[in-house]
Amino acid sequence: MTVAIQGEAGAFSHEAALKLLGEKTSVLSCQRFEEVFRALAGGAAEAAVIPIENTLHGSVHENYDHLLNFDFRIAAELNLRIVHHLIALPGVRLKDVRRIYSHPVALNQCLRFLGQHREWERVPFYDTAGSVKMLVEERLRDAAAIASEVSAGIYGGRILRRSIEDDRQNYTRFFLLRRPEQPPLELNEAGKKGWKTSIVFSTRNQPGSLFRALSAFALRDLSLTKIESRPLRGKPWEYLFYVDFLGHLEDERVKRALGHLEELCDLLRVFGCYRA
Amino acid sequence: MTVAIQGEAGAFSHEAALKLLGEKTSVLSCQRFEEVFRALAGGAAEAAVIPIENTLHGSVHENYDHLLNFDFRIAAELNLRIVHHLIALPGVRLKDVRRIYSHPVALNQCLRFLGQHREWERVPFYDTAGSVKMLVEERLRDAAAIASEVSAGIYGGRILRRSIEDDRQNYTRFFLLRRPEQPPLELNEAGKKGWKTSIVFSTRNQPGSLFRALSAFALRDLSLTKIESRPLRGKPWEYLFYVDFLGHLEDERVKRALGHLEELCDLLRVFGCYRA
Repeated sequence: MTVAIQGEAGAFSHEAALKLLGEKTSVLSCQRFEEVFRALAGGAAEAAVIPIENTLHGSVHENYDHLLNFDFRIAAELNLRIVHHLIALPGVRLKDVRRIYSHPVALNQCLRFLGQHREWERVPFYDTAGSVKMLVEERLRDAAAIASEVSAGIYGGRILRRSIEDDRQNYTRFFLLRRPEQPPLELNEAGKKGWKTSIVFSTRNQPGSLFRALSAFALRDLSLTKIESRPLRGKPWEYLFYVDFLGHLEDERVKRALGHLEELCDLLRVFGCYRA
Repeated sequence: MTVAIQGEAGAFSHEAALKLLGEKTSVLSCQRFEEVFRALAGGAAEAAVIPIENTLHGSVHENYDHLLNFDFRIAAELNLRIVHHLIALPGVRLKDVRRIYSHPVALNQCLRFLGQHREWERVPFYDTAGSVKMLVEERLRDAAAIASEVSAGIYGGRILRRSIEDDRQNYTRFFLLRRPEQPPLELNEAGKKGWKTSIVFSTRNQPGSLFRALSAFALRDLSLTKIESRPLRGKPWEYLFYVDFLGHLEDERVKRALGHLEELCDLLRVFGCYRA
């Protein structure tokens, strides 16, 4: 199975894909999110794994836009803790290190550890996994990279220090996407829990319109797990609402709630119903 | 007036500070958001300007956390369009350029323009404005940076190409923060519109609890302009809700709505009431 991801092989999206689909999954590395969606649409990949929100940085609105513009189904979600490791060539010791390569965001997430080695030069790089790839290819013996465990395995780096991130509460939520006509997937345990449904809707611009829309869920005791408003581009004061709730599309209560919501909304789209 | 910002002078937060407070505003540059908040708390700065959400990348949850942990007031908000310029030393022409320096996020937001110059090497850098500072200090005559207009002015760079960003709908919303005992500020026109109030609350974990909480606004015809849920760290299934609504804290309807909300919530905090 080939899964499209944004970033080099070994990126956290790759780690998420392996957790969801098993160790034999291969990835198609794309530079931009839009290319990931195109790869799935055009058949170059049989699935896609995209980040949708992060506990520190919020929702990836760009990927919500692509979900609206393409017609895919969310097949599963995964919450992955972002664990950064210090990775170098085999045989390189901590005292050999002079320079640290990684994406600036990853460097900034390891400031406590890096503060213990102020003599190291911090070199920004395009991609966390890409920095491991580079230092292995260039055989750099005075440098290390900050990246995922998976990237060390792929490129033949060795982990010098494990888990050097400042914040252990840094989680990214990933969606596994499939084309609507594709059959259901055999998922790993990581992807097997209760059912969740993700939708987007917009309401008329009136005070209380969101309140009325949420009545469709509240009157049927359906629990929301996410709600987020987003201004509609080019339409001041009109909003999209992203909502996740617990329940399966075939449940009678869910069917009735979505029917009720349809009465109250201008737009309603179901992104998918999947095991949480 | 000294305003604390994250990033080098010339960063987009600096541009937002100038728009809000006038051209004579000076900035205190901090490496991390937490340092920005500490600078305001400790008196090293008289105000702070922080990004709170972006149309592509979502809410900056880290800054919402700091708003909860510190006791400041939002004095104003500003929506700033993120416009990237190609900046070089005076006298350098487009055909002299061999390398482009900028933060990877900015490089990725100018791929259409960069695609017209595939021969240029793209070099990731810590900071957009910092890349202008560096190329001016090092007198690099074969390089250019991607950064804000303000950064060109500050470091003595010249804009070679204006507005090279792919997406013209890339806006960042900034908050101007002050300590609670500080007097109101004279704001520029950019910060003078209607009144908006920003709050955070959490509700008991029961189906329909958000619906009941929103009744406090809907029953009083108050319009929400933002709602976002956020899982509470370490408490699965409990959520914080960030809500912005139109209205002034001294309005009778707003007072009653907040009183009503207090009955329904475990936590309620007002971050500020400001001109939108």
